[in-house]
Amino acid sequence: MSVSIGDVERAVERIAGHVLRTPVVEVSPGLFLKLEGLQHSGSFKARGSFNRALARGEIPEAGLIAASGGNHGLAVAYVARSLGVRAEVFVPTVSSPVKVAGLRALGARVTQIGDVYAEAYEASVKRAAETGALDIHAYDQAEVVAGQGTVGLEVLEQTGGVDTVVVAVGGGGLAGGITVALGGRARVVTVEPELIPTLHRALEAGGPVGVEVSGVGADALGASRAGEIAYEITSAAGVRSLLVSDEAIVEARRELWRRHRIAAEHAGAAAYAALLSGAYTPAPGERVAVVVCGANTDPATLV
Amino acid sequence: MSVSIGDVERAVERIAGHVLRTPVVEVSPGLFLKLEGLQHSGSFKARGSFNRALARGEIPEAGLIAASGGNHGLAVAYVARSLGVRAEVFVPTVSSPVKVAGLRALGARVTQIGDVYAEAYEASVKRAAETGALDIHAYDQAEVVAGQGTVGLEVLEQTGGVDTVVVAVGGGGLAGGITVALGGRARVVTVEPELIPTLHRALEAGGPVGVEVSGVGADALGASRAGEIAYEITSAAGVRSLLVSDEAIVEARRELWRRHRIAAEHAGAAAYAALLSGAYTPAPGERVAVVVCGANTDPATLV
Repeated sequence: MSVSIGDVERAVERIAGHVLRTPVVEVSPGLFLKLEGLQHSGSFKARGSFNRALARGEIPEAGLIAASGGNHGLAVAYVARSLGVRAEVFVPTVSSPVKVAGLRALGARVTQIGDVYAEAYEASVKRAAETGALDIHAYDQAEVVAGQGTVGLEVLEQTGGVDTVVVAVGGGGLAGGITVALGGRARVVTVEPELIPTLHRALEAGGPVGVEVSGVGADALGASRAGEIAYEITSAAGVRSLLVSDEAIVEARRELWRRHRIAAEHAGAAAYAALLSGAYTPAPGERVAVVVCGANTDPATLV
Repeated sequence: MSVSIGDVERAVERIAGHVLRTPVVEVSPGLFLKLEGLQHSGSFKARGSFNRALARGEIPEAGLIAASGGNHGLAVAYVARSLGVRAEVFVPTVSSPVKVAGLRALGARVTQIGDVYAEAYEASVKRAAETGALDIHAYDQAEVVAGQGTVGLEVLEQTGGVDTVVVAVGGGGLAGGITVALGGRARVVTVEPELIPTLHRALEAGGPVGVEVSGVGADALGASRAGEIAYEITSAAGVRSLLVSDEAIVEARRELWRRHRIAAEHAGAAAYAALLSGAYTPAPGERVAVVVCGANTDPATLV
């Protein structure tokens, strides 16, 4: 396996003091919410980025480089500012001015290029080769996956153990990392929007395949294919892969606010949507942790 | 003392399973935020209301009664629904339709009466005498103060101990309860808006006095005099009483969202404002817990 539990344990040590140990709240008996939206930069992504940035001693003079108009870009910009190095973030020209401004506010140099994400990504790879900057992939790098996996170890510690961890999938870095971290101590249920079934299709097809991306989760779960690492890990572990409708995600996000005063972006509410909609029904007495993985959202849209 | 640490410990047992053990997050080394806005009904108020409702065996046929257009009313309505009993809530005629609708959505019978809170309160007392409903005061009852004090015991457990707990004051039920719960194991710093200095004036005057109420915290910290119980406890303990400007509260609330993705109402951000504004500066190495005590706010106003 390309990522081991030892890699996750080393990530814990490496990123300690740089990331928050986000809190867990037991909202009903045996149902735990891991509030990863409270993480620095507003999502779990800071974990993987710190782990990759810190994994190899010195960071190049050119700093960090990434392609992302979303949570990953924010995380890389945050990590760079926090470590006092440069960040360069490539985003497609269609990215919203708000997101670009958010990246610049964190001190990142932002380059808008290409009509779609893939073109911005290609440009970032080319640029990294020129400058020598350390590229941080949104999900398909071992250090990134190991960093995200630290969420899984925290969940085990903070809950005293659960039977099941329910987690949303975009490229699968978080789900893959958590699966490694749990090492069979709890089962993993992955959740994707019906409109972005990247891991679901990969598990059916026997490997990552391209899918069309749309719907409310596209801004944060919009990878058009699952990561090779995430596929390798989750297929070997036999995770259960579920799909939920956009309507269920919208409703789950509203309920997180209405019932619990937890702010989540749509992607951050996808895992909770699996429970709320009945796509996943825990057995009597089953202890379940749901990762609320991001809160980078306009709060005006919570109600 | 009218409330003992034994009362708080009994409250813990009584309300267990009815309230959430709200999470704590260490946002920087030694700085802990207690996220009491995630509590059922959106504020700590559910603790005191459950404790009073459950303290005397049977709840009267007429159910629970309270006067409050704010967090206390929501809590009493929530508690009644949760326990399957009636709730009657008296609010002044000026209360916003949104708040009245919120109370009714929880199943409470709402009576709008009087121009100001005091008139609604008087009407509720008269009504309670007629119906035999159990009156739950917003802050000045021993069971209510003991229930709010459970926050203090949780803070000690969840942080492994702190030097200081910083808490906002309206009528002082939360601050009083926490002071009792800590029992000298940590010092208490109380924070009030400059425009609603009820406890501050009480400590100066040697007893609760009426104050004018205005500003951003008025909807949740708008008691016009400190509770007798809270005064008795906090004056005996020698708590440090601080005032913060409305500007500092507004800024603190924005920062809680911007930095940490924590939704708070203005009152809920008042304690954090004391640190952010420099009204309270921890000593090097001092471990400080800040109670973010409520999140009943329009999320559209967080940014």
